[in-house]
Amino acid sequence: MLLRCLRWIQTKVAQRAERLLLRILAVGPIPQHVAFVMDGNRRYARMNQKAIAQGHSDGFVALRRVLEACLRLEIRCVSAYAFAMDNFRRSPQEVDDLMHLAHDKLMEMSQHGQILEEYGVRLNVLGKTSLLPEYVQEAIRHVESVTRNNNKAILNICMSYSSQDEIATAVESAVRKSLENTDPEIEITEEDVAAQLMTSVAGSPPLDILIRTSGVKRLSDFLLWQCCENTQIHFCKAYWPEFGLFDFVPVILEYQRKCWGTR
Amino acid sequence: MLLRCLRWIQTKVAQRAERLLLRILAVGPIPQHVAFVMDGNRRYARMNQKAIAQGHSDGFVALRRVLEACLRLEIRCVSAYAFAMDNFRRSPQEVDDLMHLAHDKLMEMSQHGQILEEYGVRLNVLGKTSLLPEYVQEAIRHVESVTRNNNKAILNICMSYSSQDEIATAVESAVRKSLENTDPEIEITEEDVAAQLMTSVAGSPPLDILIRTSGVKRLSDFLLWQCCENTQIHFCKAYWPEFGLFDFVPVILEYQRKCWGTR
Repeated sequence: MLLRCLRWIQTKVAQRAERLLLRILAVGPIPQHVAFVMDGNRRYARMNQKAIAQGHSDGFVALRRVLEACLRLEIRCVSAYAFAMDNFRRSPQEVDDLMHLAHDKLMEMSQHGQILEEYGVRLNVLGKTSLLPEYVQEAIRHVESVTRNNNKAILNICMSYSSQDEIATAVESAVRKSLENTDPEIEITEEDVAAQLMTSVAGSPPLDILIRTSGVKRLSDFLLWQCCENTQIHFCKAYWPEFGLFDFVPVILEYQRKCWGTR
Repeated sequence: MLLRCLRWIQTKVAQRAERLLLRILAVGPIPQHVAFVMDGNRRYARMNQKAIAQGHSDGFVALRRVLEACLRLEIRCVSAYAFAMDNFRRSPQEVDDLMHLAHDKLMEMSQHGQILEEYGVRLNVLGKTSLLPEYVQEAIRHVESVTRNNNKAILNICMSYSSQDEIATAVESAVRKSLENTDPEIEITEEDVAAQLMTSVAGSPPLDILIRTSGVKRLSDFLLWQCCENTQIHFCKAYWPEFGLFDFVPVILEYQRKCWGTR
């Protein structure tokens, strides 16, 4: 009983310390848009003798935790790479587990009193959602509709996503728009393409920071166009389920240092 | 005299050690295409109390040195970010100095017996070259024509370059091609865009490694589309003029380690 009580106190103190730390950080300049390549769930599972599905499940717990830290910092937009179009090549069992997990978590997040409502977050799913199973598409329609009027922050879940596909699709839309104007000379500018990107259509501000976990130093077809002049890219060693404040705070501090340096 | 002699011996030994190191490295898997964001010339100049123009000049010396190391390793293609379209915003004096330097170095490299001939390198200048002064365009036409038939390696000098502009231009070409087929349904795929990128037109293989020097963790509108699934991104602390084998070798070793890991 005493031990349990002590653990409860310990947790409460840690939570308060965390909140205080975030409040101090929030005094400085805060990025508007942070994106995460949530990499390392499977290696984390293997390292901890867990099932792969459990690794992905722990990954979703991490997403909730990181999202909450972002929202406390008043970061306006968070993008998370949940499922690459390329991931369909994984084993049918793993893809199936991931789809069920996505469905369950989307439904859970959209519930009354949960994080999206608490912080006024609009959720968008970006990607070729038509490739997803019907029950996941149904969950996406539900959560997008339920959170449609939330206007304090944006969470982009990138599922069945490929940046090159996103650009090619944006191009097609830009061409179609240009053709509608019955303009004989089709001219597509950078701005035309940018305006048609899924992130732009979803109302996301320019990307300030991109973080990839698990020590892999690649972008893996994620938000390529969006990694523009000012996007800071960080590769962290921690596996995604372990990614925490101790990994995130140095990134924010570096962003603030750069902002102050250029003033 | 003795001191001079000793220094000569020291240099020769260092050169031999360097060649030996590169030969050992070349036994392992070698990337086909490596790109450099040559960042930090100005900060290097300031740190060493040199004129900015001298910093850029030292940067070109570094490019020659790094290029030679790459060619010894039999890397088939090297891309270097020499001048961003955005760099036209710098002071007219600095832009003018850079243009003269580019002209002189392009003419120098194209000479008989110089590095491009020695290693059979075809040089391409990628970017909106029409924005460059006429005498630089003239030098580009000259060096591209002189090296046109070299077929052992490729050097892409990206000048007046912007990746977003490159993609938008590729899109326009893809649309034009599609219109030529008098196809009423314009459909642009990822492959259509990829095929029209300047790097593709110049015959470059997929990008394996992108290195940015000077500790800045951004891509700055360089080869965004090309940073695909397998491109490893490295941010090195050294300023570009100081970038040497001690910075480059660990990157190649990491590439080899990854290649062996996935076999």
